[in-house]
Amino acid sequence: MPMKDLFTPIKWLPEGKVCFLEQTRLPREEVWVETSDCARIADAIERLAIRGAPLIGIAAAYGLALAALSTQATDYESFRSDLLKSAVRLRSTRPTAVNLGWALDRVMRAVDGVRDVSDAREVTIRTAQAIHQDDIGACRRIGEYGAPLLPAGARVMTHCNAGALATGGYGTALGVIRSAWKAGRLKHVLANETRPLLQGARLTAWELREEGIPFTLIPDSAAGLMMQRGKVDAVVTGADRIAANGDTANKVGTYHLAVLSQANRIPFYIAAPTSTVDLSIASGAGIPIEERSPSEVREVHGVPVAPDGVDAANPAFDVTPGEYIAAIVTEAGVGRAPYGESLRSLCQRGVAAHA
Amino acid sequence: MPMKDLFTPIKWLPEGKVCFLEQTRLPREEVWVETSDCARIADAIERLAIRGAPLIGIAAAYGLALAALSTQATDYESFRSDLLKSAVRLRSTRPTAVNLGWALDRVMRAVDGVRDVSDAREVTIRTAQAIHQDDIGACRRIGEYGAPLLPAGARVMTHCNAGALATGGYGTALGVIRSAWKAGRLKHVLANETRPLLQGARLTAWELREEGIPFTLIPDSAAGLMMQRGKVDAVVTGADRIAANGDTANKVGTYHLAVLSQANRIPFYIAAPTSTVDLSIASGAGIPIEERSPSEVREVHGVPVAPDGVDAANPAFDVTPGEYIAAIVTEAGVGRAPYGESLRSLCQRGVAAHA
Repeated sequence: MPMKDLFTPIKWLPEGKVCFLEQTRLPREEVWVETSDCARIADAIERLAIRGAPLIGIAAAYGLALAALSTQATDYESFRSDLLKSAVRLRSTRPTAVNLGWALDRVMRAVDGVRDVSDAREVTIRTAQAIHQDDIGACRRIGEYGAPLLPAGARVMTHCNAGALATGGYGTALGVIRSAWKAGRLKHVLANETRPLLQGARLTAWELREEGIPFTLIPDSAAGLMMQRGKVDAVVTGADRIAANGDTANKVGTYHLAVLSQANRIPFYIAAPTSTVDLSIASGAGIPIEERSPSEVREVHGVPVAPDGVDAANPAFDVTPGEYIAAIVTEAGVGRAPYGESLRSLCQRGVAAHA
Repeated sequence: MPMKDLFTPIKWLPEGKVCFLEQTRLPREEVWVETSDCARIADAIERLAIRGAPLIGIAAAYGLALAALSTQATDYESFRSDLLKSAVRLRSTRPTAVNLGWALDRVMRAVDGVRDVSDAREVTIRTAQAIHQDDIGACRRIGEYGAPLLPAGARVMTHCNAGALATGGYGTALGVIRSAWKAGRLKHVLANETRPLLQGARLTAWELREEGIPFTLIPDSAAGLMMQRGKVDAVVTGADRIAANGDTANKVGTYHLAVLSQANRIPFYIAAPTSTVDLSIASGAGIPIEERSPSEVREVHGVPVAPDGVDAANPAFDVTPGEYIAAIVTEAGVGRAPYGESLRSLCQRGVAAHA
């Protein structure tokens, strides 16, 4: 598959189905799943077949569109009640990324303005498609705002996957990297493998290879050494939820990179749409952190790597205090400390204003 | 196998053979290998079947003992020349741990005082056995010096494996943990899995379970979050080489823990015998860092986790600047900054004085 700008890991099909890339099978197989069942979308989000904060927002919205098509309701109240049930299920899949709830709320609000079931179905689908298109546009603008922050010939480190595979297309952190590459400003990427689920090794490596961007895969624990050796000019990651004060939840290990960046005087950037900002939460302490199954730590692709049944903890995210973040790059511009002020202003101008 | 204080992953057998635990097979199988071939010891060190700075020193010394028994030389000069060839091969296996060269030098110096081939064989074997016994004693004393540094009810994080499996027995960092456990001062251990070769998940988890010490296995990237959550009272790791100024090479990722410890005001300790101190190297910049095969990053237990053939870097160690280290616990006592002074004094009193 040639990875083009327009590559998107999820599609709305004209016949009223969703087609998504089963990301757990990458990089070994490129399996696409077609479904008209909202429950299957919820399951895919839970299993990380569909993952990445912006993408799970888009997928949840498409899930509601499937629910809107499949409900037998003939009156608006029953329709809305069925839609809400699906929204509750979709919302329960993963707790940390705020984009999920943001997208569901945006669809439900759009439907609230309608009274006819047939119109409401149309509005649900159109809103989900708008969320998807808005995200692609947001990613491109994040790229445009972010690339100039990097020095010419930049060597950039990233963590997990914040690429086309995590968004409607193009990517957030990888959007910045793509834009810098096109502008001739990028020399090399260091991709952290991102244990336990290896999204860096499986997904970021796959995207960068498709795009022809030179990169080296490293164990997460080698990040600090690479910084000490002077091989990193900037670190750019995505985000799953940004509190009002700039504290940022992202894939576990991101906090390590931020602290190590500071110790090595390397700028650490977050790239995310304003739909990832949660102004209702004052600081990172209020962000719920998903705890996943210990088996993801005890096994790699089903192969046991630890003694049977040992206790293991598997927090999926950590929170990087805003003080470590040089800038937060959004589709509405670049936010800098004090984040309380800059994030509020960016949210008023960005996609978040739609919800 | 009941993990007793006296458990040792390598043994000298009375019939002139070495028996070692094939650590690559842990935790799934406990395979012991008997050999009279020095080349097989060198190979085992290279493959990490025998690993851990103190243990590879002991194994190298036993390797020389096997070489001393197998050489056909009848005159001392030929004997010494054969021994030196084996020493060169053993020394080439791994570059970072200084214990390897230290042990080889100690054996060669002992042999230098002898002129009779038969006596020299005896001296070689006896010196290797002494190195082994000295290391067990050193680990116990490291435990005795280290345990009182921990607060009552301590929750301790460790990285990689610096246990009985990495030494002649008992362990360095795990020696401190064992001693604290016996003294009733230890509550819980957080064991980092230690990608790429997962010595934490495979070996430390195995040792702690055998010993009945409560622990939780975590991905390396979750260490910072655990510190932020207040779940870590101290971090203790081993070392592969300590420069004269206290800069310490240890398993890659150790530097992360040191920097994160400082950011979270948690004491970070190194536990190692004085044979790990290299006074000939002024600072960490002079410590050679082993670069291992990229396939260890691209695969886990032979299962590919990244796209075929992508570029990957696999540095086995990093260097933690002495300024991050609260104390270096040796068999001769506890060294504190300024390390230039304290390490010199400890080396004069410790096992390093034998070489």
